Amino acid sequence: MIIVFKPEATEKQIQHVLEKVKTSGFPVDINRGAERTIIGIKGKIDQVARLRIQPFEAFPGVEKVVSISAPFKLVSRQYKPQDTVIDIEGIKIGGKKVVVMAGPCSVESREIMLEVAKKVKLAGARILRGGAFKPRTSPYSFQGLGEEGLQYLHEAKEKTGLPIVTELMDPRQIALVEKYADILQIGARNMQNFDLLKEVGRSKKPVLLKRGMGSTVEELLMSAEYIVSEGNPHVILCERGIRTFESATRFTLDINAIPVIKQLSHLPVVADPSHATGQRSLVASVAKAALAAGADGLIIEVHTNPEIAKSDGPQSLLPSMFSDLMEELKKVGHAIGREI
Amino acid sequence: MIIVFKPEATEKQIQHVLEKVKTSGFPVDINRGAERTIIGIKGKIDQVARLRIQPFEAFPGVEKVVSISAPFKLVSRQYKPQDTVIDIEGIKIGGKKVVVMAGPCSVESREIMLEVAKKVKLAGARILRGGAFKPRTSPYSFQGLGEEGLQYLHEAKEKTGLPIVTELMDPRQIALVEKYADILQIGARNMQNFDLLKEVGRSKKPVLLKRGMGSTVEELLMSAEYIVSEGNPHVILCERGIRTFESATRFTLDINAIPVIKQLSHLPVVADPSHATGQRSLVASVAKAALAAGADGLIIEVHTNPEIAKSDGPQSLLPSMFSDLMEELKKVGHAIGREI
Amino acid sequence: MIIVFKPEATEKQIQHVLEKVKTSGFPVDINRGAERTIIGIKGKIDQVARLRIQPFEAFPGVEKVVSISAPFKLVSRQYKPQDTVIDIEGIKIGGKKVVVMAGPCSVESREIMLEVAKKVKLAGARILRGGAFKPRTSPYSFQGLGEEGLQYLHEAKEKTGLPIVTELMDPRQIALVEKYADILQIGARNMQNFDLLKEVGRSKKPVLLKRGMGSTVEELLMSAEYIVSEGNPHVILCERGIRTFESATRFTLDINAIPVIKQLSHLPVVADPSHATGQRSLVASVAKAALAAGADGLIIEVHTNPEIAKSDGPQSLLPSMFSDLMEELKKVGHAIGREI
Amino acid sequence: MIIVFKPEATEKQIQHVLEKVKTSGFPVDINRGAERTIIGIKGKIDQVARLRIQPFEAFPGVEKVVSISAPFKLVSRQYKPQDTVIDIEGIKIGGKKVVVMAGPCSVESREIMLEVAKKVKLAGARILRGGAFKPRTSPYSFQGLGEEGLQYLHEAKEKTGLPIVTELMDPRQIALVEKYADILQIGARNMQNFDLLKEVGRSKKPVLLKRGMGSTVEELLMSAEYIVSEGNPHVILCERGIRTFESATRFTLDINAIPVIKQLSHLPVVADPSHATGQRSLVASVAKAALAAGADGLIIEVHTNPEIAKSDGPQSLLPSMFSDLMEELKKVGHAIGREI
Repeated sequence: MIIVFKPEATEKQIQHVLEKVKTSGFPVDINRGAERTIIGIKGKIDQVARLRIQPFEAFPGVEKVVSISAPFKLVSRQYKPQDTVIDIEGIKIGGKKVVVMAGPCSVESREIMLEVAKKVKLAGARILRGGAFKPRTSPYSFQGLGEEGLQYLHEAKEKTGLPIVTELMDPRQIALVEKYADILQIGARNMQNFDLLKEVGRSKKPVLLKRGMGSTVEELLMSAEYIVSEGNPHVILCERGIRTFESATRFTLDINAIPVIKQLSHLPVVADPSHATGQRSLVASVAKAALAAGADGLIIEVHTNPEIAKSDGPQSLLPSMFSDLMEELKKVGHAIGREI
Repeated sequence: MIIVFKPEATEKQIQHVLEKVKTSGFPVDINRGAERTIIGIKGKIDQVARLRIQPFEAFPGVEKVVSISAPFKLVSRQYKPQDTVIDIEGIKIGGKKVVVMAGPCSVESREIMLEVAKKVKLAGARILRGGAFKPRTSPYSFQGLGEEGLQYLHEAKEKTGLPIVTELMDPRQIALVEKYADILQIGARNMQNFDLLKEVGRSKKPVLLKRGMGSTVEELLMSAEYIVSEGNPHVILCERGIRTFESATRFTLDINAIPVIKQLSHLPVVADPSHATGQRSLVASVAKAALAAGADGLIIEVHTNPEIAKSDGPQSLLPSMFSDLMEELKKVGHAIGREI
Repeated sequence: MIIVFKPEATEKQIQHVLEKVKTSGFPVDINRGAERTIIGIKGKIDQVARLRIQPFEAFPGVEKVVSISAPFKLVSRQYKPQDTVIDIEGIKIGGKKVVVMAGPCSVESREIMLEVAKKVKLAGARILRGGAFKPRTSPYSFQGLGEEGLQYLHEAKEKTGLPIVTELMDPRQIALVEKYADILQIGARNMQNFDLLKEVGRSKKPVLLKRGMGSTVEELLMSAEYIVSEGNPHVILCERGIRTFESATRFTLDINAIPVIKQLSHLPVVADPSHATGQRSLVASVAKAALAAGADGLIIEVHTNPEIAKSDGPQSLLPSMFSDLMEELKKVGHAIGREI
Repeated sequence: MIIVFKPEATEKQIQHVLEKVKTSGFPVDINRGAERTIIGIKGKIDQVARLRIQPFEAFPGVEKVVSISAPFKLVSRQYKPQDTVIDIEGIKIGGKKVVVMAGPCSVESREIMLEVAKKVKLAGARILRGGAFKPRTSPYSFQGLGEEGLQYLHEAKEKTGLPIVTELMDPRQIALVEKYADILQIGARNMQNFDLLKEVGRSKKPVLLKRGMGSTVEELLMSAEYIVSEGNPHVILCERGIRTFESATRFTLDINAIPVIKQLSHLPVVADPSHATGQRSLVASVAKAALAAGADGLIIEVHTNPEIAKSDGPQSLLPSMFSDLMEELKKVGHAIGREI
């Protein structure tokens, strides 16, 4: 950590900060420049992290505080250099093989759920997605089938063998959702719902953590740190598009974030081209791009009849389009030394 | 609602959409242009809102669906033209008098809480703020004192008479927080935590709903609609800065949003210049601006010793600065025909 | 074009708008709904475009004006469905073969220029890039060698056979730059320098038009329309990253924009992973992603000694890294049915 | 300037950087921490600025380079602590008195120009605005009357005594525009048209420099530095709204930027509520806000008949609305200790 003083900082102000820093016990280094004084504080990441609780920016005479180390620890690649591989009933996420998760946006009926599950399994998906609890912008939109939806997902799993990923919105639902789900999904709108993060951090189930649409990569990693620091190391990160000024698409998939996260963290990363684009005709191109950029998996919305989809119909692929996309993904995966 | 077809849409595709629309029972109007066909659907807002559940964008041949009416109803000015005024123990938010809420970011100790409360009361604040449950980006940061913090807030209220606004992060905390708080705050990071919104929607306490940093004004109003549609009409909206590319300040206060919200909704709007800027030296200018733009209130962080603040020290005003600001605000308020 | 009236619009206001619309001679369709009146105006794209000059939003009683057709014409795929292929001395941009353009950010010396040119040619680049006129944020940064730089580029072309793409910033430089360049580059900061666009629109040389970092895809296409409408149909569009709140990278490459542009326009699209990321270690992943998303080309910064680069050293690849990347790109290209 | 090395940086890499730094002649300070080595470089702002030309981020072993001083010099408040006041025929911008500039978006006809000029003069405007050269997104939109427009502006000045501010888009127009204009406007889209900045930097006329919609405050100040470093110290900065994800308004006025700029720079700042909102009904609120935040002036679009305005009709005030707004602004100005 580096504390930079204003050119006009007084000696008294500098000494005042120094005293506070010294009580922490870390080695301190003063650098008196022609114009400014700078203090460097040495120490291991997690120790200095504690020191950050001191709001040095609030001290008189201080211009800025520069963090040198990342603010996260357990999820950082510096802490654990080798890739984390998460095993879900034998399916490994984060290894050489890229995992495609597919299914309808929300679970709407037993029939559709079973049919979509069969179709995506046939095309090569290895995890089944579907929402039973739906975070909807409008209170008047379909809010999900709740436990009934979870039961349909469970039946689809029994019929196809595909493990289930499904969203959890309320900490009070955890016991229920854990009963059915193989992966607990935290949606973009709850990425900083810290009580919910702590709750899934105490679960034994892997967690798929989606990036908030107004959140930075660093904040995504801090939210993952919440989960891991509670005891659950099985976190899969998901890039699903951020808010920008561009209005041609619903969100802007941050493709840069995929290699950035792989550099900063050992956790697996998947991409969601369906939400990131909001348009069916763009999903295939963006899915291939995310794979080529290094994603460990993809999560794609598929519906047998998007016209009656209760949410996100416009971005859902038909099973035949999904099947074609899987063929293309296999080729791209092969080209970059991975399998699907 | 208007459905616009692609130039190449077939008659069969158009008829298919028409049938679906007609089953809804709304009057329909077809407009066959030189290049495109357009369907207009007539009906009252809330009726057509139900129709929106149909994903017409997902139908073959459809280019886009244009909503004419706003997607919110109960919070709209069209539904209720006169301003909503919320009464908190005699203090009216949304009327001629502008209400300043002030206090520390988080409740840290009994002594500081009582001292800050006394000071802000003296300077003219009419509501006391302070967080007992703190949403922090890092799991290693101070997470709030919990119930102990609520008790200090309560004691401060008893000593000063100032009603309390404090944040609620988890639906399981509601009974506890309701016991102490006069206004329930939903923080920016929980603006789309829909289960929490529903929970406070069933409370009798007024709610201060902060805009998410990646959320649009329309989404803010939809979240307010969640609360109001559950039965709680006492919602105060809060503009607290959005995420933009500008890095000179922590967030960008969306000053346009203040008159925009006043046009679209009858609910009162307050602004938070402390979080929106992140820097003490900018708070006064932005507070005056928000007042001049039409805000019904301001929520400002004040701390007797920002150096030991456990959160947001750099943006907290000292009591003397707050007191000076109140004098300036009184003048600006008077200039625009309001009181403070 | 659709004009939507406010619910409270008077008959007089509606008639007033109708009269104005009718003087345009286009067929008009009135739709009187339960709450609002809507006017639809029929006509061919370019005719109605003229009508748009009327600011109907400014008329009393009007709520909004919805454009149905795109505001660009000559560059739209609707106007010309087949892909535009641009031929630069036998190298085709926009066809099956993907074109890689490479070279240093700025031309710094004869030696480096010639060496980089040789190396990128060897690795498979087919166009040579290098800036002689540099748009720099700071007046104190290196501003480019000017004509001397163009001469070095020319010599590099003579030695390697690689055609040249180089930036033009000032309409007064056009005669000079045209003498040396095979492709005229318009930089992101000049995307809406309309006099410059008109100037290159009157040139016979192809133009590489970079998207502004704060500009939408629609605005990029409108800027291309400026060039094409002046008589120069040879425009190559370039996605080079946009401004977002994410600060982990210099810009955010808008990967969605690649398939979006291919749908809206017949013009070829290239991507610039060097500027879009700002970090050497991210360039390869993002380059492969852009290719997989459908880009017709890539423009990549390569420098033999990034440590002495006078601009953008941190994002320049070493020739050996570029050579490795080319091998990877060939495989990805093959996987998606293209060649490099 | 501080250079931070990676934890894994080798001694050889550190020495390599040190040598380069030492050749610059600046005093250097090495700080070897438990995990990382940090180098501090001391020196006066402008000297170290020269060193920045070295791309230390590109050196092996370097993690990041932190700039301590601002990258601009002549425009910084550190360089010149007292406010710059610009005198335009006796009208002072940057002093106690706030200056309102008003007029139509573009000069459309002699009659309208003269009428609007008379009206805004009567209401208290002290500078007349109007565009003769118009930067329009579409090549099919009205591009301005050119010299004819400048003549009408000139006539309006003769009749009212109001000095003229008008936009310049092309360096080749400077001699012509200088003949008529009292203030040369550089529009948002040309904020980083560096050749144009240099050109107006060699003029004797004051320059109104608008912030680009995708540009940071720091970049705005760097563009001002271009002008001042060429010899023209008379620069007025203008906040006119930035691009964000919010779509309820055309742009988002960055109200924070007003006090931020006043802290960083001695140059006067004006705000443009017309472009920043894009809607007539929002202009008054945002104008008052900008004034309360500390703006030294406002630039507001006024049109006698917005229905026939060839650009920006929807955001133009009618003369009577402008007149009412001036009355309100006088009161707010008085409340904050300024005059209008």
